[in-house]
Amino acid sequence: MNASAVFLLGISLLLGSGAVYGALPFDPLPEQPPIPADNPQSEEKIGLGKQLFFDPRLSISGTHSCNSCHNLSAGGDDGRAVSVGVYGRKGSRNVQTLWNAAYHTVYNWDGSAKTLEEQFKAHVTDPRIMAIPEGRVLVDRIARIPAYVKQFNAVFPDEGVSFDAIAKALSSFQRTLNTPGGPYDRYLRGDRRAISEQAKRGFDTFVEVRCASCHFWVNFAGPIPGVALQQGEGFYELFPNHPGTDYERRYRLADDQGRFNITQDNIDRRKWRMPGLRNVVLTAPYFHNGAVKTLAEAVRIMAKVQLKTELTAQQVDDIIAFLNTLTGEFPEITVPRLPVTAGRTVMDGYDE
Amino acid sequence: MNASAVFLLGISLLLGSGAVYGALPFDPLPEQPPIPADNPQSEEKIGLGKQLFFDPRLSISGTHSCNSCHNLSAGGDDGRAVSVGVYGRKGSRNVQTLWNAAYHTVYNWDGSAKTLEEQFKAHVTDPRIMAIPEGRVLVDRIARIPAYVKQFNAVFPDEGVSFDAIAKALSSFQRTLNTPGGPYDRYLRGDRRAISEQAKRGFDTFVEVRCASCHFWVNFAGPIPGVALQQGEGFYELFPNHPGTDYERRYRLADDQGRFNITQDNIDRRKWRMPGLRNVVLTAPYFHNGAVKTLAEAVRIMAKVQLKTELTAQQVDDIIAFLNTLTGEFPEITVPRLPVTAGRTVMDGYDE
Repeated sequence: MNASAVFLLGISLLLGSGAVYGALPFDPLPEQPPIPADNPQSEEKIGLGKQLFFDPRLSISGTHSCNSCHNLSAGGDDGRAVSVGVYGRKGSRNVQTLWNAAYHTVYNWDGSAKTLEEQFKAHVTDPRIMAIPEGRVLVDRIARIPAYVKQFNAVFPDEGVSFDAIAKALSSFQRTLNTPGGPYDRYLRGDRRAISEQAKRGFDTFVEVRCASCHFWVNFAGPIPGVALQQGEGFYELFPNHPGTDYERRYRLADDQGRFNITQDNIDRRKWRMPGLRNVVLTAPYFHNGAVKTLAEAVRIMAKVQLKTELTAQQVDDIIAFLNTLTGEFPEITVPRLPVTAGRTVMDGYDE
Repeated sequence: MNASAVFLLGISLLLGSGAVYGALPFDPLPEQPPIPADNPQSEEKIGLGKQLFFDPRLSISGTHSCNSCHNLSAGGDDGRAVSVGVYGRKGSRNVQTLWNAAYHTVYNWDGSAKTLEEQFKAHVTDPRIMAIPEGRVLVDRIARIPAYVKQFNAVFPDEGVSFDAIAKALSSFQRTLNTPGGPYDRYLRGDRRAISEQAKRGFDTFVEVRCASCHFWVNFAGPIPGVALQQGEGFYELFPNHPGTDYERRYRLADDQGRFNITQDNIDRRKWRMPGLRNVVLTAPYFHNGAVKTLAEAVRIMAKVQLKTELTAQQVDDIIAFLNTLTGEFPEITVPRLPVTAGRTVMDGYDE
């Protein structure tokens, strides 16, 4: 699906509760994201997933938890250009925020994972991230931690500790990492004073110059799961759309072929899953390679290379004022206690 | 000060509230540790320190917070043999727990820091840990984060953001990381059923075979600050005390010269600051080089290389039952929100 299809979508799929601008739907973030039928939420499962999320034993070296890169104290990312995994290994892509991730239909910059569950399995076994050689190795390690075994047996009585169960528990926790209630959502719900006049002007500009052609709906990432796209179906765009700019050269925007690396289909060259914009002011630096350090520069570049538009300084300021209203309210999270292996470590043999 | 002096200490400094075994003092962990006169606690300062503790921007690469190695979800350490700092750089020493650290009189395995404040400054500028080249670099970075500046100005009105102020705020938070209320402390306070008969037998063995000659008093690390030792004065022991054992060769126990590396004084060869034993079942692997994977093996080695004693399997089991009673109650900690640099990152220029 691409931008030209989106206007039709916008016209045909207006949601009753939302706002409509230029036939594009915008809606407050629903309190709950879609929950897959095969992984219903439960308090115990979410609690287990939270422990796993903060547990560095999920990396081969015992140094990196999910929270190491997807920092829940901050923007759900690491504030760096590209990720650093175990043993100081650098990745090639900018870490994406986990906040509101459950409202996406596919995962990773290239859409290589169809669900949060798949995304976890890919990251934990990625040699540049957590570098677990295969799921079985992680299962063996977790199965050596008695309190985890007990919890898994209670939450997943049919399977106990398994790679699937680990992925499911983690994903259940991640489906609670949502930030409704920010100024923009309050504005959409009728509080006309929740955002400034400049932010309103910025939103109008955002729609007029057609940023909103792709960045629309609840997560500003296009169609929402279960409505216009099913989970696993992606919304991809070409980036840069207008090639050969100075920006492209300076920030090496066209070096990475994006989704093509996954599909080997020429139609997917430099195609990228639409990133959301919620909490975007917290997630600098920007773009798939993290090459752009400020949001102002990112906005200028997007207008130029996607829309062939030169924004005025005032327009950039206004759009940023609007983007600031997309910062949500973050749930309070208590630091979990991790299950113990009394008097021994499960990290023996992995200390290189 | 060494073990021979300790019996005299034990005899001369009995505390009214504590238990005395073989003239050695034992006391429940006081609710509050000593607070230095030049860094009084306040709620705002502790809150600021907590944010700094969880903030990876305190490492040069933006990848490591204090909590990365001193994991407060677990034993206040990393469960690894030796630390891994920025860029995958390995240290040479086992990470020590931060839980109850405020009850020590000196810091690090070699006593190289006299206070928590000094310990922080050394770790944050250690190239193998957080690798900030000098304090000024960290101050410059923190000073680019507006909400931090506001907080520092409020908490430290005379100095604002400074290396000293960062160290003070962090140390204030660390002085709240205490675990009173565990089974052993409840036992000492009069609840005779708080620990098992085996644990009581283990404690008797611990005293009889003279583990307690060095591991005594509130933190099982010798004299407590402000009573028998002033802050900055260390309690050191020779390790291995009886050289040339198979254990020494197998685990390379005598390779590192310990405090000698700091003082260059021969009397300090293989001298080490007495480690505490609270929560010791959570802090495997063991010893300054983390070479020993289980607590049972650590107990056997300590008896052999320090006390020239071969423990029976039953004695080892009993001592471990006792050590299990030293696991405390952990305070509930909420994950802090970190101050934002909206639409930009302070990590630009540090992304190698």
